[in-house]
Amino acid sequence: MTARDQTSESKSAGSRSAVVLLSGGLDSAVVLAAARSQGFACHAISFDYGQRHRVELDAARRVGQQLGVVEHRIVKIGSAAFGGFRGSALVDAIDVPKDRDVAHPDGEIPVTYVPARNTIFLSYALGLAEVVGSGDIFIGVNAVDYSGYPDCRPAFIEAYQAMANLATKAGVEGRPLKIHTPLLELSKVGIIKLGLELGVDFSLTHSCYDPVAGKACGHCDACLLRKTAFEELGLKDPSLS
Amino acid sequence: MTARDQTSESKSAGSRSAVVLLSGGLDSAVVLAAARSQGFACHAISFDYGQRHRVELDAARRVGQQLGVVEHRIVKIGSAAFGGFRGSALVDAIDVPKDRDVAHPDGEIPVTYVPARNTIFLSYALGLAEVVGSGDIFIGVNAVDYSGYPDCRPAFIEAYQAMANLATKAGVEGRPLKIHTPLLELSKVGIIKLGLELGVDFSLTHSCYDPVAGKACGHCDACLLRKTAFEELGLKDPSLS
Repeated sequence: MTARDQTSESKSAGSRSAVVLLSGGLDSAVVLAAARSQGFACHAISFDYGQRHRVELDAARRVGQQLGVVEHRIVKIGSAAFGGFRGSALVDAIDVPKDRDVAHPDGEIPVTYVPARNTIFLSYALGLAEVVGSGDIFIGVNAVDYSGYPDCRPAFIEAYQAMANLATKAGVEGRPLKIHTPLLELSKVGIIKLGLELGVDFSLTHSCYDPVAGKACGHCDACLLRKTAFEELGLKDPSLS
Repeated sequence: MTARDQTSESKSAGSRSAVVLLSGGLDSAVVLAAARSQGFACHAISFDYGQRHRVELDAARRVGQQLGVVEHRIVKIGSAAFGGFRGSALVDAIDVPKDRDVAHPDGEIPVTYVPARNTIFLSYALGLAEVVGSGDIFIGVNAVDYSGYPDCRPAFIEAYQAMANLATKAGVEGRPLKIHTPLLELSKVGIIKLGLELGVDFSLTHSCYDPVAGKACGHCDACLLRKTAFEELGLKDPSLS
């Protein structure tokens, strides 16, 4: 098979395919459901990067199956050899804060920030998108219940998309890439409502940063955000049962 | 150790450190020498991504040792699980072209293009830079003897830098990242001359895309470019001995 044959094949097969970053958490489950509801055949991609809440990858598998992905790739980031992804409470021996004030002192970037994480994840998604012939990447960043992470801001996503369109053969050849952020303007309550409309089974998801024996702690930033939002809707967070 | 302690430590230790993308080829050896000559303590990073010329990683190790890096990280990209990096003659069962006309038909992107490769490599470099407290990344892209790869163009590098400064805690906190491209305006002859001035031992480098028993083939695009440049300088390419 020549390179030209492969490209033609990818183009025809992937005209409505998308790459979806799937963490196993609440937000990315809704993102995947949104992409599916728009008719995309979804290639899900998740990352094993040494996160202490690696149990989220099992959740990602369950969510991908429930929502019917074409394929689900779980990529291991060579964290030890890499040496990046350090200095964060998500991967190092640093305590995960257990209330919202400590998690966001004076509007600072939280200790759960992982250096360049979304940049690396999106770059893998970009490479996969080009290979499967997709011009669409979905990611669950959000500007309302803002996490405080620099790489979740709209300005970052816009800059990433601009860069991506200069980086790839597809971009050069006039097949631009779009980064979809269907949660960008939604509150956590709005995200949960959208997910319920789209048939997401939230009991399959895992958001906790600091699970105990695979179960959500109920007190970290990630747990509190979703717990409060479910309560506002008069519901119990099924991940805390 | 708290996250804050780690950050302070990195800042003081890394005030003049740089992250250098080191492939083992001629260009990145000169880039590393240029970074060293500017007084940077260099953290070299290389990638094992399933390239058929993986022997370049041995060259990268030798070059890093010769030029005195602080550390050298070789990161394995989980290529099989990832599924990206496909459709390229560098990783797939596609023939590597053996003369310059075929390698660049009608100015098209060559079949040796690897989707999103530099984007992924730079993203790892970005993560490592933030962890070691560096605001400087060096990469050997070149706009003169232009490879035809979209992710080697100056516009791509500028867009990457803009994105990177929105992506990271360092960028948000006013410690901007600079991507250094010391080879950008140099011809291959100019690159070799600079390397000779800076003491690069080119016999340690490996550029060939299609090595036979670990030796340069002498006929692929990468071999021809450097062979011709050495000849213009009245020299023999030491990698072809």
